[in-house]
Amino acid sequence: MSEELGIKASKSDFGKWYLEVIDKCGILDKRYPVKGFPIYMPWGMFLIRQIANALEKELEKTGHRPVNFPVIIPESSLKKEKEHVKGFENEVFWITHAGKNELDERLFLRPTSETAFYPMYSLWIRSYSDLPLKLYQTVQVYRYETKMTKPLMRGREFFWIEAHTAQKSNEAAVKQVKEDMRIFEAVLSELGIPFLLFERPSWDRFPGAESSYAYEIIIPDGNTLQIGTTHNLGQRFSKPFDISFTDEKGKKNLVYQTCFGPGISRIAAAVISLHGDDKGLVLPPDIAPLQIVIVPILLKGREKNVMKKAVEVNKRLDKFRTLLDERNYRPGFKFNEWEMKGVPLRIEIGPKDIEKNQVTLVRRDGKNITIDEKELEKTVRSELDEMTKSLRSAARKYSESNIKEAGSFNELEKMMEKGGFVKVNFCSVDEKGEACAERIEKSLGAEVRGVLFNKKEKPAGKCIVCGKPASHVVYIAKAY
Amino acid sequence: MSEELGIKASKSDFGKWYLEVIDKCGILDKRYPVKGFPIYMPWGMFLIRQIANALEKELEKTGHRPVNFPVIIPESSLKKEKEHVKGFENEVFWITHAGKNELDERLFLRPTSETAFYPMYSLWIRSYSDLPLKLYQTVQVYRYETKMTKPLMRGREFFWIEAHTAQKSNEAAVKQVKEDMRIFEAVLSELGIPFLLFERPSWDRFPGAESSYAYEIIIPDGNTLQIGTTHNLGQRFSKPFDISFTDEKGKKNLVYQTCFGPGISRIAAAVISLHGDDKGLVLPPDIAPLQIVIVPILLKGREKNVMKKAVEVNKRLDKFRTLLDERNYRPGFKFNEWEMKGVPLRIEIGPKDIEKNQVTLVRRDGKNITIDEKELEKTVRSELDEMTKSLRSAARKYSESNIKEAGSFNELEKMMEKGGFVKVNFCSVDEKGEACAERIEKSLGAEVRGVLFNKKEKPAGKCIVCGKPASHVVYIAKAY
Repeated sequence: MSEELGIKASKSDFGKWYLEVIDKCGILDKRYPVKGFPIYMPWGMFLIRQIANALEKELEKTGHRPVNFPVIIPESSLKKEKEHVKGFENEVFWITHAGKNELDERLFLRPTSETAFYPMYSLWIRSYSDLPLKLYQTVQVYRYETKMTKPLMRGREFFWIEAHTAQKSNEAAVKQVKEDMRIFEAVLSELGIPFLLFERPSWDRFPGAESSYAYEIIIPDGNTLQIGTTHNLGQRFSKPFDISFTDEKGKKNLVYQTCFGPGISRIAAAVISLHGDDKGLVLPPDIAPLQIVIVPILLKGREKNVMKKAVEVNKRLDKFRTLLDERNYRPGFKFNEWEMKGVPLRIEIGPKDIEKNQVTLVRRDGKNITIDEKELEKTVRSELDEMTKSLRSAARKYSESNIKEAGSFNELEKMMEKGGFVKVNFCSVDEKGEACAERIEKSLGAEVRGVLFNKKEKPAGKCIVCGKPASHVVYIAKAY
Repeated sequence: MSEELGIKASKSDFGKWYLEVIDKCGILDKRYPVKGFPIYMPWGMFLIRQIANALEKELEKTGHRPVNFPVIIPESSLKKEKEHVKGFENEVFWITHAGKNELDERLFLRPTSETAFYPMYSLWIRSYSDLPLKLYQTVQVYRYETKMTKPLMRGREFFWIEAHTAQKSNEAAVKQVKEDMRIFEAVLSELGIPFLLFERPSWDRFPGAESSYAYEIIIPDGNTLQIGTTHNLGQRFSKPFDISFTDEKGKKNLVYQTCFGPGISRIAAAVISLHGDDKGLVLPPDIAPLQIVIVPILLKGREKNVMKKAVEVNKRLDKFRTLLDERNYRPGFKFNEWEMKGVPLRIEIGPKDIEKNQVTLVRRDGKNITIDEKELEKTVRSELDEMTKSLRSAARKYSESNIKEAGSFNELEKMMEKGGFVKVNFCSVDEKGEACAERIEKSLGAEVRGVLFNKKEKPAGKCIVCGKPASHVVYIAKAY
């Protein structure tokens, strides 16, 4: 597993840089002998876990409880909701045999788990006192992607969380949708990842949803990436799956449902893409597998004092994820390695620091300070917090500078070359607008991603495609 | 999800009791529409996570690092090691199609991941400085079991950890095997689970292993359960998978390999089976999803003071996993529920306790004390530790009382009716002994589980089956 140290590609050459970082920082190995199925390497796996934990914590705070459903779903369950089956039957992996036996019924690997959860919801839910039912699972899902795969962004196996809720009314479902949005915002804010929240146009909803909301970011190559979704399923699934409850008055009703799918692998891709620099990863302190690395500068004859101090400093920081790097390498080698791997804070301790009762802190995003040893815990805490803020603000600035506005199809065409989101006046976000969206896709290879959900934007003028009066401001982008 | 409270079966009727506990305590729901694939419910999922975390912590302490390999393995990889393929080809699930396409090569769901890891080990390992390579993954695995399934003990999908190492010498591999044993002992000791460690006879090794070691316990119905294994693979896999390294002298060698598979689902089964009682679960403090539940006794007019104190107590115990049960139910209902679910410690706070500056602690294994409030943290810590010890000692006593010794086949037959382990003199643990083992299996439905690994036991006399001079003391049991 020896690896050449240092990233050669510049981040301005994003495609190349990204693949090199994924490889050299030990995130994924894509040489596994089945296409689209990468191996998560240790540093990548630590990162995935941290992101999962952050999401799980927020879900549990809001009363969601963990479950684990089987990875396989019988074909008959898939067929119950007619749009859902159409959306997924061509992109699932089919199990047809076990040992030497052909199975009576084909099974498929979950691409998402509505059809696994909801037959059970029908058994578990009886009365209003069982509602809301809020369950989630952290799992991998499987999709037979035919488009080109890209590490963490598009693969045939990826990590996500899926939360499925059942509610007693439409209002409760709408409230749940908003809770999902707050959970996503809380976690992504700590990661310094700004996102846009769209309501999808009718032709681009999740198969079986009444409305779909998507969390999207802009990648440095100008493409956009959906890093999570929330769907209001209404009663579309409760009807075919017969999920009903007896209300306070003794009346039987169908439940209203929502589902929420933050993409763990894609959030990792966002963190890598948005914060990384020419040296490699830059990890937000909240989810960095290691938050602090302590590097002793060992000069001959004075190793003992330095090591003693380094051990002491490490112990004082036991509330953080730290590593005292005692390996027998030169300090410069260690600096480069941990910089490449994105560790937020490095603490250097040398003989001079000991004489002066000081330590040197080097923040991965550039700041370099020497502090009085007494201030250690306090300063470490505040520097990590400041780093999160600084990453967040840089990412937000980048994001904002890549949202533009076009007044005509020609302008849109020109702007789309540079990527990012371009907002335009548009005729309609239900079926009537689909033809205009198709024209954009055919001419520009770009899609109507939707309407901003948490900010009403009034259209002024005409649809830039068909010229009819505009009903909405929509965002156009080339999405992964 | 309303559930009738309280376990009706007595633990002496173990089979019935076990299924009722699994169901009513919210561990698994086995009504998922594919046989042998249960749903892990929230309380079960919390338990699985705690056990996984405890094992992961020990693995990481000893330098193992996490990875995640794809769930699917190509058929060609399975075929590389000839014994391994024989052992598994009839018990895997086969993926033959994706969407509407038939795949060029069939894929199977991992039943274990040697054939996924080792083609990559061949790429990753170049020199002695890459060794030892110690990676693990916490995943679910899939086996097409044809025997009757039993929740957590035998299923077609179960949780485990698999650690795979590559070493530069046979000595290093043997050392690794011993490290695995120490890891297992460290975790299981905290769970109060005594186990026997066997070296398996040659005819019962893991397919492709040079030697196999198994961790086994006795279940209250007298059957035994393997809850983990360690295998020394020697160079059996490094040869076909071409995993070699250049040593210090520049010579090319094949690596030596080991793998370690603690069964998370089965350890959960062990905890439930060994510690539970007529009231339900009794969870060891180390892995209890909740360690302490605080129940305020709210009498009319005095609720405010009691709640204030309960909140304060909850805050003081923030180093533990606690829940302040504020639900609008009677205290008795809460007591019963949390007892059934096995929470180790209950703290009761009522108006009388406040007057006297005291709190009442009720340990799930029976002890009931009232303590001065000042002693809270200290006493909670010591009571939880004492409870672990007490569970461990009771389980050890139970285990020891179910290990017997038979001097003849007739005696063995009689003893086997009561279950547990029966040790006997035996002719041979390599091929020469297999016929005698088969006779035992055919007559008694019991198996030769192996020879104790960490305690040399000298045979005296003759093999109880064939009458030839005995070479080993072996343990016989009916295993799940």
